[in-house]
Amino acid sequence: MQNGYVVIMAGGRGERFWPESRLARPKQLLPIVGETPMLAQTIERLEGLVPVDHIFVITNYEQRDAVLEVCPQLDPQKVIGEPVGRDTAAAVGLAAVLVGREDPEASFAMLPADAVIHDAAGLRSTLETAFVASNAHPVLVTVGITAAYPATGYGYIQQGGPLGHYMDRAVYKVARFVEKPNQETAQAYLDSGDYFWNAGMFVWSVPVISAALTKNTPSLWSALQAIDSGLSAGGDLDELLATTYPQLEKISVDYAIIEKADNVVMVESGFDWDDVGEWPAVERHYPADDAGNVVRGEAHLESASGNIVFSRDPDHLVALLGVDDLIVVRTGDATLICHKDKAQAIKGLVKEVGAKEAWRKLL
Amino acid sequence: MQNGYVVIMAGGRGERFWPESRLARPKQLLPIVGETPMLAQTIERLEGLVPVDHIFVITNYEQRDAVLEVCPQLDPQKVIGEPVGRDTAAAVGLAAVLVGREDPEASFAMLPADAVIHDAAGLRSTLETAFVASNAHPVLVTVGITAAYPATGYGYIQQGGPLGHYMDRAVYKVARFVEKPNQETAQAYLDSGDYFWNAGMFVWSVPVISAALTKNTPSLWSALQAIDSGLSAGGDLDELLATTYPQLEKISVDYAIIEKADNVVMVESGFDWDDVGEWPAVERHYPADDAGNVVRGEAHLESASGNIVFSRDPDHLVALLGVDDLIVVRTGDATLICHKDKAQAIKGLVKEVGAKEAWRKLL
Repeated sequence: MQNGYVVIMAGGRGERFWPESRLARPKQLLPIVGETPMLAQTIERLEGLVPVDHIFVITNYEQRDAVLEVCPQLDPQKVIGEPVGRDTAAAVGLAAVLVGREDPEASFAMLPADAVIHDAAGLRSTLETAFVASNAHPVLVTVGITAAYPATGYGYIQQGGPLGHYMDRAVYKVARFVEKPNQETAQAYLDSGDYFWNAGMFVWSVPVISAALTKNTPSLWSALQAIDSGLSAGGDLDELLATTYPQLEKISVDYAIIEKADNVVMVESGFDWDDVGEWPAVERHYPADDAGNVVRGEAHLESASGNIVFSRDPDHLVALLGVDDLIVVRTGDATLICHKDKAQAIKGLVKEVGAKEAWRKLL
Repeated sequence: MQNGYVVIMAGGRGERFWPESRLARPKQLLPIVGETPMLAQTIERLEGLVPVDHIFVITNYEQRDAVLEVCPQLDPQKVIGEPVGRDTAAAVGLAAVLVGREDPEASFAMLPADAVIHDAAGLRSTLETAFVASNAHPVLVTVGITAAYPATGYGYIQQGGPLGHYMDRAVYKVARFVEKPNQETAQAYLDSGDYFWNAGMFVWSVPVISAALTKNTPSLWSALQAIDSGLSAGGDLDELLATTYPQLEKISVDYAIIEKADNVVMVESGFDWDDVGEWPAVERHYPADDAGNVVRGEAHLESASGNIVFSRDPDHLVALLGVDDLIVVRTGDATLICHKDKAQAIKGLVKEVGAKEAWRKLL
């Protein structure tokens, strides 16, 4: 798919993996799972699918240097720093403008920066099918992940009738998108076999997504046209973004377009996927000891079970004695000790910590 | 009591308060409770009872410099470093030799280095009574602490008939010593009113304790006489200790003498006392927040109750979220997270950690 493009959304704020992650060093720039930063792994998986100079990364302005440090193979011109976060519809629109300037007929994939996918070949072949489908039809292609368990933390896509086969992989119409379900509903989805996880991965052509943006978010799209014109007039992208971005409507691409469009289709994934949204998800990707503890770094555990320990300083020992189901994360300036059941409250805790003058530096 | 002496036993190995305490920096050299090291507090409490040059400290050879650093007012000649630990009977015998060389008729108190006592005046007046009694009678005086709760972690002294009043404080014969009781027995002791905690504090004269050592541990005592002779001949104490100490019998003074002697009496304490033997005891001496958490250092707690946090680095934040009844102790090179119920297993954990070549440095 040598004429395809990939735009990676790397806008995380680094709260849920605190204290390992920080505002300036969010999850995608860290080896939360694996030995290299999540973003570097995401880019590595694309090798063979698209040329590296067809890869854009949309990140925060403050994180742009860190992105280039972590992924030095990227074209610095294609690492875009948003001056303020404006949710995913704005990022998709900006991507359509920038890819369109390279090739107005190109198709491009939008991918999150920080998912864990072990089967890179499966990802590439799935995206290849999506590219082919988006070239063959005026459709918005989503990727439906085969549900591995009754997850309550993901949205689902209900599969509709078949659209056809491309590169030996089936593409379906989409019956509907549904929000994160409760446990019972999630189990029913899993049992039914026609509900798939919505991984926030899309493929579409510049003309098709542009038409959808024109129809559904006309003011956002016309504001982004000003950036296109400004660039054509020799303007500086950072300056154009600084002027335009703060005015853009803050809305997700799912809400603004995907859930409303009648031309959304789904390619069934041929790969594993985990967005590893919070600390407890990490243990799915590491071997546990006999008592179910997952340790990264130096730790000594006695009478302890089901704990996750993350402490990357080789000169510091974390010792656990008689404790169960804890998340223990230690860095040079902060240590978090959190019950697994409370992982979702970490974001709020970080807010509280950062509200104290003395600890703002820990954000 | 200007002619009295005090000998402080400061031989702790620093295991139970790991990782704050270490072999070279045990509890008595740390401000586990209070703002100054426990040993410094112990010496400060004696001000007005005996002159500072009547105070000996018996410690490990390796800790001698640290003791002098923490208590610079001490006479360096009176800070004695044992080359190897030989339990308390050896230390008592050595004390009898060294005090006897200052004044063969003197009485001296033996005190642990690391108890928490808030009422220093009460301690001094209790010891004063003990000194007077030991001057008036050929007795071994113990201090009986009025039990504040049915403790199962202390030995008890059962009070016998009255011996007399000295300095307005009653002294009793001792009916018997008993080992650490179970909960039911401890409650019965508390209810009876005639059982007292054995705090390991003694007062006796050089002749009386020398006679007891001669009778009960003759080989130990004669070996220590060799040190006395060696010193009289101009020998160096450290060299004499290095030769003699390793041969000494390893036995506690309680077992060797106190529990066998028929001339043990007890002075009833007029002060509070807590040996703070392990981390959970620390919370008795600090105000807790509304949820029963005791924090020393920088910590942020949410949905957390009954925890003890000890982290003295002002530039490091410890955050607890959704956890209860934990002991969290953080230092530069080690972090302990231990359920309060497992505090007694810390000693074993330290042994395990120290057995690993890479972590021997954490002992």
